[in-house]
Order: sequence, then C-alpha cells, then structure tokens
Amino acid sequence: MNDESTNASITTIKEAYKLVKPYINKTPVLTSKTINEIASKNCGKNRQIYFKCENFQKVGAFKARGAINAVFRLSDSDAKKGVVTHSSGNHAQAIAYAAKLRKIPAHIVMPSNSPMVKKNAVEGYGAKIYLCEPTLDARESTTKRIMAETDSSFIHPYNNDNVISGQGTVFLEFVEQLREKGVDIDTIISPVGGGGLMSGVSISAKSYNKYINVIGAEPSGANDAFRSLECGKLLAHSQGQPNTICDGLLTTLGSKTFQIIQKNVTKIITIEDSYILKAMKLVWERMKIIIEPSSAVPVAIALFSEEFKKLNAESIGIIISGGNVEIDTFPWSKSKF
Amino acid sequence: MNDESTNASITTIKEAYKLVKPYINKTPVLTSKTINEIASKNCGKNRQIYFKCENFQKVGAFKARGAINAVFRLSDSDAKKGVVTHSSGNHAQAIAYAAKLRKIPAHIVMPSNSPMVKKNAVEGYGAKIYLCEPTLDARESTTKRIMAETDSSFIHPYNNDNVISGQGTVFLEFVEQLREKGVDIDTIISPVGGGGLMSGVSISAKSYNKYINVIGAEPSGANDAFRSLECGKLLAHSQGQPNTICDGLLTTLGSKTFQIIQKNVTKIITIEDSYILKAMKLVWERMKIIIEPSSAVPVAIALFSEEFKKLNAESIGIIISGGNVEIDTFPWSKSKF
Repeated sequence: MNDESTNASITTIKEAYKLVKPYINKTPVLTSKTINEIASKNCGKNRQIYFKCENFQKVGAFKARGAINAVFRLSDSDAKKGVVTHSSGNHAQAIAYAAKLRKIPAHIVMPSNSPMVKKNAVEGYGAKIYLCEPTLDARESTTKRIMAETDSSFIHPYNNDNVISGQGTVFLEFVEQLREKGVDIDTIISPVGGGGLMSGVSISAKSYNKYINVIGAEPSGANDAFRSLECGKLLAHSQGQPNTICDGLLTTLGSKTFQIIQKNVTKIITIEDSYILKAMKLVWERMKIIIEPSSAVPVAIALFSEEFKKLNAESIGIIISGGNVEIDTFPWSKSKF
Repeated sequence: MNDESTNASITTIKEAYKLVKPYINKTPVLTSKTINEIASKNCGKNRQIYFKCENFQKVGAFKARGAINAVFRLSDSDAKKGVVTHSSGNHAQAIAYAAKLRKIPAHIVMPSNSPMVKKNAVEGYGAKIYLCEPTLDARESTTKRIMAETDSSFIHPYNNDNVISGQGTVFLEFVEQLREKGVDIDTIISPVGGGGLMSGVSISAKSYNKYINVIGAEPSGANDAFRSLECGKLLAHSQGQPNTICDGLLTTLGSKTFQIIQKNVTKIITIEDSYILKAMKLVWERMKIIIEPSSAVPVAIALFSEEFKKLNAESIGIIISGGNVEIDTFPWSKSKF
C-alpha cells in the first residue's frame, strides 16, 4: 500500500451519477413494519429503517455503479485496449458488464476454485476469464502479466477514485427517493469491506448533512477497518485470516478508502456472524427479498448491536449492498428433501 | 361437496376491490430480462413476462384479499361473534389478520404438527389457536365444535363467494398497473390449488378480454384440477394423496371453484416438481425475491412446459401467489456450514 491521496469528492460523485444513471437500475427503497417494530422494541426508542436495495441493481450489487464510472472515464485510446481486474465476486461481473456496455475487451482474473455460476455470469457478459491459483500472489502476478500483454487498464475493486465516486452515487439516489417520501435520515449504515462503498457513501452523507451518523458495519471476524480506525493506521486482518460468512467483506481497506473513512465515518461497529445470519434470515422471511450475508451486517447492527441501541438515531438508512448468494450452500439449512 | 351455485362475478370482484383496497399492499409488478430471454429462447418466440408479486402482500400472500373481503362482508351482529377456519397455511394468517382489522375474535384450527413459525404468526395477529390431530376429520370436527360453542362464522379458504371475489381483485390491480406501463397481456397464468385464486382471476381476466388465454398451473403430483376438467366432474387426488413440494396446492377444487374454472379457464397445464424447483431457484437467484414453491408453478410452465411453448402467447402475466417458505427446510440445499 502506498500513501497516494484521493480526489473523490461530492463533485466527482455528482458527475459520476450523471454518467452512470442511464445504465443502472433506480433500485427501490423498501421498509418493513416488522423490522421497525423489532428495532424499536430492542432499543426502547421509536426507530424507522429505510432500505436502499442494491440487490436489485444490475449484476445484483452496487458494484455496477463504480465499475461503470471507472470504465466510462477511460480515454477512448485507453478504453479500446480493454480493462483488467482480479475478483471472484461482484466486482468481476460489474467490470465485465461495464466493458460490455462500452464495447471494449474485459480480462478477468479469477481463482480456479471460483464457483461455476460466477464464471458463467462473467462469461455471459462476454469477458475473457483467466483462471489462476487461489492466492493473492497468483492473482496479482496473473493480472500483471495480462496488463503487460494487452496494455489494458487495471481497475481496482475499491482503491480507485472513480470506483469510489461511482459507489457514492447510491447515497445521492437514496436521499432523492427519501425526499419524495418526505423522509430525512439522521443515520446511515453501510457495510465495510475494502471500503469503496463506505467511502463513497460517507462523502455523500456528510455533504447531505454534516451531523449525520455515518456508521460502518463490519463482521467481528473481519474487523480490520474497526482496528485500523482505532489505531490510526492501516492494519491487516488479525491472525492473518478473516473468518466470517460475509464473502464480500474479506478484503482490507486500501490507502484511499482508509483516508476517506477516517475523515468521514462516525464509528465502525462490529457484530458476530450469528447475529448477521439471524438478520439475513429475518430479511428473507419477512421482507421476501434475497440479500447476501455482507448486506445483513448493517441490518444486524440496527437490530441487535448494544452499541447501536445507545445511539441517538430515529430515522435510519441502510444500504443493502447486494443479493448474490450461492443458494446451494445456504448457511442455515438442514434440507428435508 | 354439494352442488351449490356461485354468485361471484366481475361486479362482486369490483365491489371487493373497493372494500379491500385500503387494507392491502398495492404489490409491485416486476420483470426480469434474464427470465424473458430464457422464455423466448426456449420457445423460439419473443415472450415478455410480467410478475404480479403477491409475495409482498400483507401476510405474505394473496390470501389477505379474500379473507378481508369475507370478514368485512359479515353483518355487524355476525361479525361480533367472530370467525373460524381451519388451515395450516396462509389462509389461517389471512383470517387472523382480517379479524384483527375488524377487531373481532378469530378462532383458527391448526394441525398439531404445524410449524412453530406459523402458529406464532397467527397468534401475533391476536387469533386463538386450537390444535387438533393432523387429519381432515379432526380439523372439521374441531371446527364444528367451535362454531357450536361460539356461534362464529366459518370462512372456507376457497369455496366461498366472498373469498373468490377478493382473490379476483389481484387481476384488476395487475391490469391497472400494466396499463400504466402501456402493456396489454394476452395470457395469464395462475397456480391452482383449491381454486379460489384461479376462479377470481379467471372471472376478472375474461372480463378484461374474452380472448385472453387463462392458464391454470398445477403440479403433476397434485393434478386434480387437470383431471377434473378433463373428466367434466370433480375428482379427488389420484391414489388418495397429493405428492408435490407445493404445500399451498395440496387441496382439491371445491364445488364453486370447479364451476367457475370449468367455465373460464382455457387450459390447465401440469408440470413436474423438478421443473418447479428449477424455476423457483431461478427466480430467487436472478430476481432476488423469495417466492414459495406454489408460486413457482406458473413460472415453470412459462419457461419449461412443452405444451406452453406451442401456445400463441407473447405478453404473459403471472400471479406470484406468495412468499411464505420454511427457509430452514430449503429444498435444494446441501449446507456447507
């Protein structure tokens, strides 16, 4: 990691929104009476929660926003040489989708153990897949080789100003929709993995209201952002490995996202996987929508975190980051079939 | 079963809509590019599918419509004595919900092996539960005893004109929403169990356009409606027992619903559970919404039925009847946790 600075700002986020808007879904804002009741009962205050549902976004996650902004900001001469990234998850699909929109080549490095469904999705967008050993070293060296061979542009999944600005558009759209309902939120909770979404959201949120609570939601088993903020410097995962069901939150912050989060986030709150699963199940059962484990972290904090209960928060926005779940390896099921 | 006639009509359905509208959700109409592509590819024609999503309805299913209409049409003197029904499923919750709205007692007879989550939901609406042996005999005798003791009104889950008229409102609302999008459907597919929904929908659909294809969707393992229509008289399940994962479609048609379906439904199409599961999984994965197995039957037919492929159908409406699934007993899962 180097100390490169970031130029992501409310201006670049507004510009990004203009650019990405025609290519993305205006995802719905949902509420649930049951979940409001549980949240209110658990803290003894009257709390209303608004869910910004990026599980209904193109490619099933907010990542489409950042990928489109990054891919479309390349110069024509760079763009025609293509883009490259390494990812086993939503970023891979998002880059493939964005490249297809711009009609340029996409090279996606994926670990050889990636699920078939994810490989199929990436190929479905016309991207070329390069399988490598499932280690960070292999991913990075394969990526470098492809960059050298193709002269294509590398798009980092989160430590990239255009990606961060793209992700920030979700909050702009959210408050626009809330305004139509006459709602003003005093708190926003977003999951934190590499910090791209959290960074973009935190910049937009502070521009909306400088007194808003900006809460980062992190699984206890991958609490690098929590510890990094506490310590004042970028830390790796403790004991080397993250341990959580939230497959979208296994990465650590980058140099850019750490800076932005340090400046704009009120507090990172962590929560155990058992509560995350409970929250995920509750959303599936009561709201009838599919959310991925990473998206259940803010819900778990809003419902079950002792620290969050004490917070002065009445009108709470939550970013549901995505809905890409391996349904076959469902966490709580004991099949009777 | 007796041969009682029915008075359900487009007039009673329009009246029902006025009555239930303030108490129900105007559920969304969704589409999926992926599902349209699969449907079109599989039949070699260009097909668009519109989903009316009653999984987002109060109590998680269309049953709220019929229950509210039936409960609110009772005279004040009858109503104050309460209502009674027997059900282990969505109708139980719907009656409990409707009785709560009208502030009258609800007595719900449930088989003793009903899942805790369903008992909790019914009690959550303030209804009184009476557990009985899990046989139809025990359910009916317990219901009769409660009717005698309380003088409450029995509300049949489907063989009841007010229930049928209430269920028919879903189609009125659907075409209203489609009209706003400039869409005119030539085909409607609805699941068939006891036939309450199918009856109401078929009356509304024929009133909308007398040439519309009205397709009943039935699991092969519970094909009493298919066989009854073929034979021209009400038949029970073959071999005594239905055998399907669609827990909402285990009942057979009633005297009223049989008459209406015989008159208005173009065709019942049956499909195997393996396709139903495949369709259900596809909707969960691609549309990110939770639908119950019964709701996946029309989707399976639209995507995989050889008979449906041959049909002259371009613009297809599907009623997603509900989203109440026992997530713990998920049909296709081999948990890795």
